Amino acid sequence: MRVYLDNAATTAMDDRVIEAMLPYMKLHYGNPSSVHSHGREVRSAIEKARKKVAELLNASPSEIFFTSGGTEADNTAIVCGIETHGIMHAITSPIEHHAVLHTLEECAKKGKVKLSLLDVNQKGEINLEQLEDLLKAHPNSFVSLMHANNEIGNINDLNAIGHLAKTYGAFFHSDTVQTMGHYVHDLKTLPVDALVAGGHKFHGPKGSGFLFVRKDKKIHPFIHGGAQERNMRGGTENVIGIIGIAKALELAYEDMDGHRKHIESLKNRFIELLRENIPGVEFNGLSGDMERSLYTVLNVSLPPSEENRGMLLFNLDLHGISASGGSACSSGATVGSHVLRALGHDPERESVRFSFSRFNTVEEIDYTVEKLKELYSVSV
Amino acid sequence: MRVYLDNAATTAMDDRVIEAMLPYMKLHYGNPSSVHSHGREVRSAIEKARKKVAELLNASPSEIFFTSGGTEADNTAIVCGIETHGIMHAITSPIEHHAVLHTLEECAKKGKVKLSLLDVNQKGEINLEQLEDLLKAHPNSFVSLMHANNEIGNINDLNAIGHLAKTYGAFFHSDTVQTMGHYVHDLKTLPVDALVAGGHKFHGPKGSGFLFVRKDKKIHPFIHGGAQERNMRGGTENVIGIIGIAKALELAYEDMDGHRKHIESLKNRFIELLRENIPGVEFNGLSGDMERSLYTVLNVSLPPSEENRGMLLFNLDLHGISASGGSACSSGATVGSHVLRALGHDPERESVRFSFSRFNTVEEIDYTVEKLKELYSVSV
Repeated sequence: MRVYLDNAATTAMDDRVIEAMLPYMKLHYGNPSSVHSHGREVRSAIEKARKKVAELLNASPSEIFFTSGGTEADNTAIVCGIETHGIMHAITSPIEHHAVLHTLEECAKKGKVKLSLLDVNQKGEINLEQLEDLLKAHPNSFVSLMHANNEIGNINDLNAIGHLAKTYGAFFHSDTVQTMGHYVHDLKTLPVDALVAGGHKFHGPKGSGFLFVRKDKKIHPFIHGGAQERNMRGGTENVIGIIGIAKALELAYEDMDGHRKHIESLKNRFIELLRENIPGVEFNGLSGDMERSLYTVLNVSLPPSEENRGMLLFNLDLHGISASGGSACSSGATVGSHVLRALGHDPERESVRFSFSRFNTVEEIDYTVEKLKELYSVSV
Repeated sequence: MRVYLDNAATTAMDDRVIEAMLPYMKLHYGNPSSVHSHGREVRSAIEKARKKVAELLNASPSEIFFTSGGTEADNTAIVCGIETHGIMHAITSPIEHHAVLHTLEECAKKGKVKLSLLDVNQKGEINLEQLEDLLKAHPNSFVSLMHANNEIGNINDLNAIGHLAKTYGAFFHSDTVQTMGHYVHDLKTLPVDALVAGGHKFHGPKGSGFLFVRKDKKIHPFIHGGAQERNMRGGTENVIGIIGIAKALELAYEDMDGHRKHIESLKNRFIELLRENIPGVEFNGLSGDMERSLYTVLNVSLPPSEENRGMLLFNLDLHGISASGGSACSSGATVGSHVLRALGHDPERESVRFSFSRFNTVEEIDYTVEKLKELYSVSV
């Protein structure tokens, strides 16, 4: 049995997304910037895709910019948000994705901003009072706080953060890569200035993404060149990527409640079975709390075990189960998870992030628990 | 009849490229940064693609970085080349692609470099003596000169420029977007420090590209985030784009001579027929010179005509012929071609860039000449 429980790293593409993309590989190959018929038919498809994304998010098409993914979108929002608005101080947390953390650290290293990191407690929670104090002390700050953490699933209260940011005149960017397509984002009411998406996190193609920037907080381009994306991003558009991400978001919104119910039941079952079968199991961050964490992520902390020390992911892989030790984006490095480190995680315990999609089944969950049980009963 | 003669803007994908990409949409969807089996199979495909590209260009795989296209690759080489190597002076020409020109202008605007523009004559030729004088006056310069111009097809002598750059300790970047896949680049002997490619210019997918940076001229990343591309570019890889561009380059090299012979015969025929049928026809830049211009580009300057003034592209389009007034990347703007402006082009004459691929036919050329003849005989 081959079980894919690493959907926070990337998801399988939906067949209907592939179908939507194919005509733009084979038939409609014009350059969308060309004014002739070959170009116009592709331009029209791109603008339809932009309109669809804007509609779903209750934004204006002129606020949606397609990018090569969530990371480029985060880099654009941060680097150009800071530059365009003459911002000298930035606030983030130590458990942000590296696309945010490294980009802000780079800005700080170059002397563009002073960077303040919020504290996080052992559950990965930030403290809004500390945020307010920083915002008071540094008017016109740049705040970057993710909607939900990709490793431990903690959900931040974007409304509360956004209202604070607004009150103190800050630019509020949120890395929404893990929630886009899984939660509703109503940008008419959600007080964020910029948010991002990566298509491959909700059954769209890798290499696709978008950036939302609110009309009154316009920023300069990050990639210079042609006049594409209303002068916001040079470079011939990744047409199939754009068609794909728009279709994927459309499908996500079409039955978000249904997907959520299905995945929540899997996560609930997983938690219950683990508690029943693995004495001493814990859940990192808030991921065991169904109300306050992503329904797609469960970060499991397993009791110390000689047999599995440093080998758990490998052992699961041998049984055909794909899960992750943390963010895929940093798994090439051997330094471990910066998120779990920030939470003061006990290095004697193995942690595994299991993440679910609408394509997972009850059988896969049961199989995974069975294998974990085997792996952890050896030493008993 | 529908005729596509805008291949310098973008090309139709080769069916074999699409076939190579499909399994990575449908079956192999893992995140290449994941260490489990779903990830490893994709990682392996990406590294095979990198090795293939490196082999074809006679480079090392560690010198090839996949990007979202030629524009991002140009931005990376320029912004990070200048930053990493502490460069204070840059040299380019006024007829570079906007991906180069706007990026360098931005660097100059931010005070990072002083920017010197080479003169170009009416044929779009640069002057190597002027380049040498500038290099002498400004040691440790950044030189960015394209291999071939996308609008008028002029081919620069990369060997001569590269040797000058080397002699005076400059970093030499070349925008090779128009020649990659159409000419051989042997990076063991070609004295460039960085060059770029966009897959869609040689029958690969839009949104794919790569950057070559020579080992001893390593640069910092442009997009920050995960450890992808050996820490050179954060962001989950555009897997299908990478598979696609490598396959497209492989196919291009497989029968480059054959493609060239076919396209050259089309361009020759086009030139001859135009000369026979349209009195007063001229060719912009060096594009009428088969030895010194791209075999894929012919920039035609047509005699003044009331009927076609400002309407020629539109008239061609009505006859199903797709061609371009300049770079597709700037065609959204109504400012006209910055390249033709730099050449002092007569605004009374209409200019059209026709650009060819291996998919074009003799019939298409003949049909296009026939229609041009009709359009230009009205007033006789």
